[in-house]
Amino acid sequence: MVERLITELVIANRILAREDVVDAYGHVSVRHPESPGHFFLSHALAPAFVQRSDILEFDLEGRPVGDDRRTPYLERFIHSEIYRVRPDVRAIVHCHTASLIPFADSDVPLRAMYHMAAFVAEGVPVFDIRTAAGLTDLLVRDAALGKALAKSLGQKPAALMRGHGAVVVAGSIPSVVGRSIYLDVNAKAQAQAIALGGKITYVGADEAKLRMSDTNEYSRAWDLWKRKVAR
Amino acid sequence: MVERLITELVIANRILAREDVVDAYGHVSVRHPESPGHFFLSHALAPAFVQRSDILEFDLEGRPVGDDRRTPYLERFIHSEIYRVRPDVRAIVHCHTASLIPFADSDVPLRAMYHMAAFVAEGVPVFDIRTAAGLTDLLVRDAALGKALAKSLGQKPAALMRGHGAVVVAGSIPSVVGRSIYLDVNAKAQAQAIALGGKITYVGADEAKLRMSDTNEYSRAWDLWKRKVAR
Amino acid sequence: MVERLITELVIANRILAREDVVDAYGHVSVRHPESPGHFFLSHALAPAFVQRSDILEFDLEGRPVGDDRRTPYLERFIHSEIYRVRPDVRAIVHCHTASLIPFADSDVPLRAMYHMAAFVAEGVPVFDIRTAAGLTDLLVRDAALGKALAKSLGQKPAALMRGHGAVVVAGSIPSVVGRSIYLDVNAKAQAQAIALGGKITYVGADEAKLRMSDTNEYSRAWDLWKRKVAR
Amino acid sequence: MVERLITELVIANRILAREDVVDAYGHVSVRHPESPGHFFLSHALAPAFVQRSDILEFDLEGRPVGDDRRTPYLERFIHSEIYRVRPDVRAIVHCHTASLIPFADSDVPLRAMYHMAAFVAEGVPVFDIRTAAGLTDLLVRDAALGKALAKSLGQKPAALMRGHGAVVVAGSIPSVVGRSIYLDVNAKAQAQAIALGGKITYVGADEAKLRMSDTNEYSRAWDLWKRKVAR
Repeated sequence: MVERLITELVIANRILAREDVVDAYGHVSVRHPESPGHFFLSHALAPAFVQRSDILEFDLEGRPVGDDRRTPYLERFIHSEIYRVRPDVRAIVHCHTASLIPFADSDVPLRAMYHMAAFVAEGVPVFDIRTAAGLTDLLVRDAALGKALAKSLGQKPAALMRGHGAVVVAGSIPSVVGRSIYLDVNAKAQAQAIALGGKITYVGADEAKLRMSDTNEYSRAWDLWKRKVAR
Repeated sequence: MVERLITELVIANRILAREDVVDAYGHVSVRHPESPGHFFLSHALAPAFVQRSDILEFDLEGRPVGDDRRTPYLERFIHSEIYRVRPDVRAIVHCHTASLIPFADSDVPLRAMYHMAAFVAEGVPVFDIRTAAGLTDLLVRDAALGKALAKSLGQKPAALMRGHGAVVVAGSIPSVVGRSIYLDVNAKAQAQAIALGGKITYVGADEAKLRMSDTNEYSRAWDLWKRKVAR
Repeated sequence: MVERLITELVIANRILAREDVVDAYGHVSVRHPESPGHFFLSHALAPAFVQRSDILEFDLEGRPVGDDRRTPYLERFIHSEIYRVRPDVRAIVHCHTASLIPFADSDVPLRAMYHMAAFVAEGVPVFDIRTAAGLTDLLVRDAALGKALAKSLGQKPAALMRGHGAVVVAGSIPSVVGRSIYLDVNAKAQAQAIALGGKITYVGADEAKLRMSDTNEYSRAWDLWKRKVAR
Repeated sequence: MVERLITELVIANRILAREDVVDAYGHVSVRHPESPGHFFLSHALAPAFVQRSDILEFDLEGRPVGDDRRTPYLERFIHSEIYRVRPDVRAIVHCHTASLIPFADSDVPLRAMYHMAAFVAEGVPVFDIRTAAGLTDLLVRDAALGKALAKSLGQKPAALMRGHGAVVVAGSIPSVVGRSIYLDVNAKAQAQAIALGGKITYVGADEAKLRMSDTNEYSRAWDLWKRKVAR
């Protein structure tokens, strides 16, 4: 089970890089299936490079388990503090996807454009680190900042981070990867719809709720993305 | 004849994936040339993966012919109900092309920007599933929803689906693939023209009608697209 | 000399396809260096496919020289009629580049954004075929329509064609290819500048005139584009 | 040390080409680590082609050291005059990145959208060559024009050049490459944020200052970009 998840996590790193959700920065983690107070995450490395041997186990203080000396991601507290308060969350992506930055800095909220991104209808709050913590270098460098981000996120599937990027959460690796990819598609489509200048009808919260009851979310896409990075 | 059409259908799946009309989702079908009450469509699979052995035959109730147990596309009723009421239609694409979603959600109608997409001048209605059927999960899950979509489509070459995507129809596989690809180009060009802020002169209905009398539509492009996926 | 030009013409076809100036449609020609009343152009074929053996010689009536039976491009009159009235022109591109269609349909004129597209400052008129010839299928199907287009073009380096695309002319193959590619870049940049909503300072006609006195225009780029298609 | 820098400079040329910061034009230089009045720069060549043997050494008059007869870049004075007045600058990129041209021609200033482009918060002035020197062909052809550009740049990390492109400076090759790439991402994100039509909160100057104290800027990205061009 753990072995399978770590394999999936490595694949997720490659997919997120190939689909331009992350560039050299950003990271993806998965909760330990048997020790819910632990999670797996690469040491500090560009996602495109991540291999099995790069995955470390962390506790909810953001400390690596064991005596591995490789540098962890500075912002691992994004993961630890969300896992702490969201028992439903089993996988997390932190990214700086180009299409999300405009919404992260704007007061125009992300809205759900279509069924593939129905989860957006639950709401995507914006975390402004200055409101939470005053003057910073914009990075989630410690547990206190991680807690503030987790509080902004609340029970939502994703949060934007002003001047920074986004965090996306879900119940599995394929689901968090799918949400990250379709959040990107949705943001571009919404920006384009706004530019058309007409009246926009977004996906309703009631429609989205029905759509999200599909537990097989993104599985067909996962198979395709996986094949692309296997080549 | 049937063998040739199935080969074309497999190629169409690959082309639509390669040209970004579909991603892991979306599908393309062709009417049975000898049994017009039947049509060919893959079982539920990402179009990029579709091979000859994946193609199933369906009747107009959306039931697979024979005892094949592979899962069909949930939304096969898009195809069955359009074939039922449009004898002129011999091939259908259902897609969620990113450029079409903004128009599917907006009250700004698609208009024909150039001769390659002259068919757009016939009009591309928007199907709002809520108007037709109240609260749904946005998917065309049964024959009743398929009938409602077919009614919205009417005699037009394509319809947008609010919060979802589009359906494109034509008299042959190369034609429906060409229409799907150029609908994408046209949508992007129209969005860009609107953003310029000036007065736009769209292709006239009369000009489009003359242009569409060319029965050899998209054949040169089909050869190019085919070669690209053969590599 | 003729052999070298035909080699260049084949390379130009490949470059225009690779750089997305043309898709399956569009064409590029060169004037015969020794018989200025003749020009070279492929028979009707997607530019990506064009090889030496596909190049035909045409006269200014748009007739193939010799008894070659392969189908010529329907719109070869774009070339013949421009060569007839523009002795300075030695190479012509006809294209439907996606970025140009919005400007072809809009009353917002193309303007020069930077030194690489300085020629735009000479002006890029819009040819509306309906003004010239009433109701058509938008194609330049005969010499009369070619003459009308050539008249719209006048002494300019390029003209847009409403509901259709563009024609670009220059004194050599590398120059017409460079102009076509940078016209695309320029159109995208201008659209983006307009969307910013501020005051735009375009390249002045006087600056452009000085810049265009460089006779070595685009030679470094030609070497790069050539290498890319050689792979 | 010199050998290592020249290797880095060759890699930087390849990266800038691969990441679409430069096309056939644009150049990158590095200051001589032992002779600060000298710098290294390729002779006139598309960056994608640059190899070790193409790198020449120049003095601050823009003269090649030694008797190499290969044609230098016409605009080498961009480099020489900035090195002259900015002792902190050790690497310079001159580019015509498509996303920057709209801002170079607009009176809408570039602003910092996110932490990866925090340096933008220091300000990116626009150099208008006409204000500095009257009518020109827009190129920085001599030392006087280079001095005028360096004056516009002042102590900033980058300057836009009206009707032309940009110059980006930094303390190292990886840093100047990173700034060039993220300036592109930032410009696209800012244009998109403006198009959303809402209120935008840019990265504050105070936040950017803290962020920029990180001396390891872009090192993880450099490793990724380097691997991509090594393939």
